Amino acid sequence: MAKYITYENSGVSINANDAMVNKIKSSVQNTFGPRVIDLHGGFAGLFRVDYDEKLFKKNYKTPVLVACTDGVGTKVLLARDMKKFDTLGDDLVAMSVNDMLVLGAEPLFFLDYLGIDKLAPAKVAQLVESIATACKTADCALIGGETAEMPDVYRKNDFDMAGFAVGIVEKDRIIDGSKVEPGDIVLGLASNGLHSNGFSLARTICFKNLKLKPSDKIAALDNNTIGSALLEPTRIYVRSIIKLLSQYKVKQIVHAMAHITGGGIVGNLPRILPADCDAVIDKSKWQKQPIFDFLQKSGPVEEAEMFRTFNMGIGFVLVVSPDFANSVTAKLTKYGETVYNIGTIRKGSKKVILK
Amino acid sequence: MAKYITYENSGVSINANDAMVNKIKSSVQNTFGPRVIDLHGGFAGLFRVDYDEKLFKKNYKTPVLVACTDGVGTKVLLARDMKKFDTLGDDLVAMSVNDMLVLGAEPLFFLDYLGIDKLAPAKVAQLVESIATACKTADCALIGGETAEMPDVYRKNDFDMAGFAVGIVEKDRIIDGSKVEPGDIVLGLASNGLHSNGFSLARTICFKNLKLKPSDKIAALDNNTIGSALLEPTRIYVRSIIKLLSQYKVKQIVHAMAHITGGGIVGNLPRILPADCDAVIDKSKWQKQPIFDFLQKSGPVEEAEMFRTFNMGIGFVLVVSPDFANSVTAKLTKYGETVYNIGTIRKGSKKVILK
Repeated sequence: MAKYITYENSGVSINANDAMVNKIKSSVQNTFGPRVIDLHGGFAGLFRVDYDEKLFKKNYKTPVLVACTDGVGTKVLLARDMKKFDTLGDDLVAMSVNDMLVLGAEPLFFLDYLGIDKLAPAKVAQLVESIATACKTADCALIGGETAEMPDVYRKNDFDMAGFAVGIVEKDRIIDGSKVEPGDIVLGLASNGLHSNGFSLARTICFKNLKLKPSDKIAALDNNTIGSALLEPTRIYVRSIIKLLSQYKVKQIVHAMAHITGGGIVGNLPRILPADCDAVIDKSKWQKQPIFDFLQKSGPVEEAEMFRTFNMGIGFVLVVSPDFANSVTAKLTKYGETVYNIGTIRKGSKKVILK
Repeated sequence: MAKYITYENSGVSINANDAMVNKIKSSVQNTFGPRVIDLHGGFAGLFRVDYDEKLFKKNYKTPVLVACTDGVGTKVLLARDMKKFDTLGDDLVAMSVNDMLVLGAEPLFFLDYLGIDKLAPAKVAQLVESIATACKTADCALIGGETAEMPDVYRKNDFDMAGFAVGIVEKDRIIDGSKVEPGDIVLGLASNGLHSNGFSLARTICFKNLKLKPSDKIAALDNNTIGSALLEPTRIYVRSIIKLLSQYKVKQIVHAMAHITGGGIVGNLPRILPADCDAVIDKSKWQKQPIFDFLQKSGPVEEAEMFRTFNMGIGFVLVVSPDFANSVTAKLTKYGETVYNIGTIRKGSKKVILK
């Protein structure tokens, strides 16, 4: 008998894929609302706009679709080293949905792409289940995904993930920063830690330079392990922000928002400032997680570089009308956020001034 | 002066990213139609549904959004070895838009994710420009993307790409295969070659077993190089299929479609067959590219395995009402497709029978 070569020989496991798909089916279907149309074995995910049926929380007159894509950077490597895959879903979903939130959009659905060395059903299922759980937190449906087994691209145990989110916003209510004016108050919402940015720097400091292991307990981190302090999942701000915006339907109280990702406050806040405004941010106004001081001292890293690379304890920023700063703070606090009044807007040139 | 560690030291080049973004700006904006809202430096891509303004080719009563995600598999490794990055965009866009086409949906917009070892602006720009060009071919806007530089995940010169497409279809006109019945004709549209599936097997055969170099000319491939025969870009069927569907607005002539990807005709066609129908496919009815015979003989690979792994020359399949098979064939031929009558539907159990 001739020795035939098969697709499975060449490194792609079709049975493992079927096993994985069965494992994740119920977690994924658990994210479906009444607007998802479930075609078994279908080629694509289907989501009804349902313009006529008013299933939407708001009644959209001129709906605009909002789409975002992002990954979680080298946080995947830390998860790999810690063999802990049940929180990366929060990171992946958060990175995209928090971005669309900036425009005032509510998430509708999400899709994930996972590139991986070897399709280990248990590990992939853990990743996809964590994505499904995070989609529930972000009130969006996980309507599609792709897992690509590529042993020649990804090294043993390595993988990468990308997320795609689509949301919707009423055209006249898109928050684009154009209403920001001098005197506005800048509110900061606490992050959970590093979220999903700056991991190349953090890993270099902790594991290459200090030669720590993820399981090492650190006194300066309240005896937490360095691994768990770094892996803390990205906060999903969807419910509190969407609920807040629904309270102010007539007046636009929230003039701008920013998701604090790579580039930090100094890199992200200017993206939504008008050309003639600066934001003056008072660093003493909030409490940041001890991980940031630990990284800064351990590097050492200049403070300015810290603020350019990490969120420094503030994961999401709102610029609000001064008359409403207290009521916005009260509402967001009630919805579970930790809110700090971190600065003000003044005349300037689209910069962030840290003081 | 203390030696500070920076984000750039740790392997992430912020300036290279700015250079790349400037390079690709015009190609990307070139894909924007009037429905894209361009927010400079925005956190997300914006696309007007424009339900009220009838900018759509069709007037949607109950619009359903259709979303797909896919990568191009280990075809990226071949492109890397050949240092040729200007056709992968076709592959990436095709993999998602051809999938949504199956439902009768027209593509609206696309986003890309690129994970890469090092942000080489010229290379990344070439990749993103090829994605933008392919988006034009697929009549969709490239409204977002992410390039993640991850030297610790991707080996030198390695990268991976994921694409994400959103389209729209009128709810009552979703093509889901439920109208397929015995007697229907199966039409096959010629592929351009391997498209984006089966590359782990093809690479094993050509480069590991035969020890060919991509630049080696092969007599059996009309003296083409093995590299260029394999890298031939995936065909985008959007324009011809959307144009065809717009010709049959009252009657549903096209009962089902399938995008022939991983799993081949035998794996993909059953996905849209009713439980009581088989498709009988006559392999002698079309001409396939010489690359398939070359791979089969060189492996050697069993014919059944070839049909489970590769598209074998047919990239897209339509199941049509027998009365209209000739007129569909004529129209698609006029729109530039090579169309073969490759089989019929008969009573059965959701299988493909190759004869």
